[in-house]
Amino acid sequence: MDNTQAIFDKLKLELSKEDAKSFKEDFLDLHNYDQGRFFGELTGPERQLVYQYLSPDELADAFDEIDDEPDLIAEYLDEMTPRYAAALLNGMYDDNEADVLGAVRNDKLHKLLSYMQPVDAARVRQLLKYEDKTAGALMTTEFISVAVDATVGSAMNQVKQEAQYAETISYIYVVNESNQLIGVISVKDLIVNPDDVFIKRIMNTNVVSVLDNEDQVEIATQIRDYNFIAIPVVDKNNKMLGIITVDDIIDVIDEESAQDYSRLAGVGTEDLSENPWAAFKSRMPWLVTMLFLGLISAVVISQFQGVLDRFGVLAVFITLITGTAGNAGTQSLAVAMRRLANDEDDNSGFKIILNEILTGLLTSVLTGLVIFVVVLLWQHNLMLGIIVGAAMWGAIFIANLVGSLIPIILEKLGQDPGVASGPLISTVSDIISILIYFNIATICLANFH
Amino acid sequence: MDNTQAIFDKLKLELSKEDAKSFKEDFLDLHNYDQGRFFGELTGPERQLVYQYLSPDELADAFDEIDDEPDLIAEYLDEMTPRYAAALLNGMYDDNEADVLGAVRNDKLHKLLSYMQPVDAARVRQLLKYEDKTAGALMTTEFISVAVDATVGSAMNQVKQEAQYAETISYIYVVNESNQLIGVISVKDLIVNPDDVFIKRIMNTNVVSVLDNEDQVEIATQIRDYNFIAIPVVDKNNKMLGIITVDDIIDVIDEESAQDYSRLAGVGTEDLSENPWAAFKSRMPWLVTMLFLGLISAVVISQFQGVLDRFGVLAVFITLITGTAGNAGTQSLAVAMRRLANDEDDNSGFKIILNEILTGLLTSVLTGLVIFVVVLLWQHNLMLGIIVGAAMWGAIFIANLVGSLIPIILEKLGQDPGVASGPLISTVSDIISILIYFNIATICLANFH
Repeated sequence: MDNTQAIFDKLKLELSKEDAKSFKEDFLDLHNYDQGRFFGELTGPERQLVYQYLSPDELADAFDEIDDEPDLIAEYLDEMTPRYAAALLNGMYDDNEADVLGAVRNDKLHKLLSYMQPVDAARVRQLLKYEDKTAGALMTTEFISVAVDATVGSAMNQVKQEAQYAETISYIYVVNESNQLIGVISVKDLIVNPDDVFIKRIMNTNVVSVLDNEDQVEIATQIRDYNFIAIPVVDKNNKMLGIITVDDIIDVIDEESAQDYSRLAGVGTEDLSENPWAAFKSRMPWLVTMLFLGLISAVVISQFQGVLDRFGVLAVFITLITGTAGNAGTQSLAVAMRRLANDEDDNSGFKIILNEILTGLLTSVLTGLVIFVVVLLWQHNLMLGIIVGAAMWGAIFIANLVGSLIPIILEKLGQDPGVASGPLISTVSDIISILIYFNIATICLANFH
Repeated sequence: MDNTQAIFDKLKLELSKEDAKSFKEDFLDLHNYDQGRFFGELTGPERQLVYQYLSPDELADAFDEIDDEPDLIAEYLDEMTPRYAAALLNGMYDDNEADVLGAVRNDKLHKLLSYMQPVDAARVRQLLKYEDKTAGALMTTEFISVAVDATVGSAMNQVKQEAQYAETISYIYVVNESNQLIGVISVKDLIVNPDDVFIKRIMNTNVVSVLDNEDQVEIATQIRDYNFIAIPVVDKNNKMLGIITVDDIIDVIDEESAQDYSRLAGVGTEDLSENPWAAFKSRMPWLVTMLFLGLISAVVISQFQGVLDRFGVLAVFITLITGTAGNAGTQSLAVAMRRLANDEDDNSGFKIILNEILTGLLTSVLTGLVIFVVVLLWQHNLMLGIIVGAAMWGAIFIANLVGSLIPIILEKLGQDPGVASGPLISTVSDIISILIYFNIATICLANFH
């Protein structure tokens, strides 16, 4: 890392000296990812020099690596001549190109497309039509496909010619005359087999592919399970449309897990910006919604004001009971969410609930007993010990169930179970815990006091 | 997927008919991952037939795909003759082989190693020494390296010979006579360049590698950022030891995100087993620890029993205040944890706190105002509105700070910030919220009542 920074400093010095030749040489020596990072550190005037010193194709590789920031790239495009910008976009992999064009203003988009070859413009227009987070939106059309009657030798020649434009040469796809995907071979197969062998004889016909409207989560599962470097995308007639490469799938996995994580805490994934105002806007809706839902707990307690007035010590344990039950509910929520995500089994909902009932019984009984003993030793009040112990037992048991039931019910209803966040579960659990606590107290006090 | 199940049924039928030839043919036609899934569905007697019909090398590919269950594989090994088991292990990629051997009992381990070639046994023993979750534990030694004086033609010949044993041929590593890593070329480079070109001329000398004791999270970051298919592992003298492939890194990313997610909720990652007893043991430590920490809130409230007796309506808002502050604390915890994970900047701690102070001010002031108005409208009590509004403001502001401060302080102290889970933050936030609420109430009531 330190070494890279030294190279960055050297590059900046070369820019300041306007030493185009050395700059170009050293810049192209960098990994594409580091090229992207370096470019991100430059000032406007420095970037203008880069546009002068590097061809659009040379800079395109760096831009392919800042593909997670299409808005930023769209701003850079504004600084370039439309011709340079269009050529640069053309040099990018077309999944990234489409992402960037999706972030460009409409008038600018038409202008850029008008500078491209009609066939390229048409291809990008097609990619722009796919819905976000589907196979079509993730795929690139820069793959290598060979005809089914090719030999290893002819396929190898084709790979030699097309390699520099393809996003990966790990797999070569075999298509028939209607462009339908019928087989796949790996570059390894091409290398180890003699030139005169027919592709048809060595290809794998058991191809795993995804439809163009497939959700990105499903695609990630396939690539992870089969350990693929890339997966082909086909339309409903099995016509080959593109490929999705593993590096894009890693970004999907990161994005999905960040989303799960943030939702568990009731924040938006976008809440990582440095801007407190954006963070405020991202968190406030959850917070205020839960505030109003939480008001139910206040209303419930106010209904029991009479019990509280007679037996004021009850107030002492409100927070302990709601807090502990909330913790238990969050635990079972997290486990249920992970089980739903991992398990494709249709019975999993029932299994999760049965498990949670048993787990809830064990944890609630033990926790109830512990707090009963603690209250007895501390307050020397058997009745209070029984009330708090029984309430703790009931509250944890129900919170456990609520934590697993809510996401399962949402899923059964065809809703997104991720809506059930930690804040929702703990707020609902608060209300239920208070109901349990004060009802138990009322009954005990009415009968035994 | 339906299609795969049909093939599984056919394979089972072939086993029941003891039709070795058809079984072998159809089995080997499956993707390795599906082979592994199929094998997992078999009964003991069926598995014995498989050991008869397939060579150890043929079955090894399937076992490479159930590499996430080394304990299960260790059980399968017990069913085989030691000779078959040792040959099968030898046929697996050696990172998986080492994982399995790590799960085998010691006496069995020695027996299995005694059936291997001494050089293979020594290599596996070496791999077994690496600490879990380091580059050494993840790497495989089955890579292709060429000498620096090779030509494209000679390197290609070497790839042809070694391809079937290598885990990937995407990159070919260039080493000097001391086996030090000095460059890398891609298989693409080999294919597009003429045979007589020297590797030295086309290799990339700016190689990104990781040390054998590097943590797996760092490696995942490198592979993700640079979009690598594999990354080389070297010792401190830059000697080439092995490679880590992207499929293993996807498993690392999944494992780490599952861990982050579970920790946020205060459960163990292992808490996905079907066993309620295991789930109980995984969740109970957190729950009981938080119960005792939560007792502080009960003690605090008991100190304010006098205020509560005089102004009983205060009890009504305890849960609303602690619950809302807890939600805010969980939000800022999740954001801080994600920022710490994403940001390598050393100043990030300070930036996170500054951001949280501002975000906390905005959210707490607005929420405080909302609840002030609600209490005023509901209870027609200005004093109560001021107390609850001010307490809400203070509690949210502090909970926000606590949520981001605790992980940052843990990180600064060299501790794992992940210890700060949602349950810890909400329990600590409960105590602080109650202190704020009752102190504000005491002051207001003493001065203005």
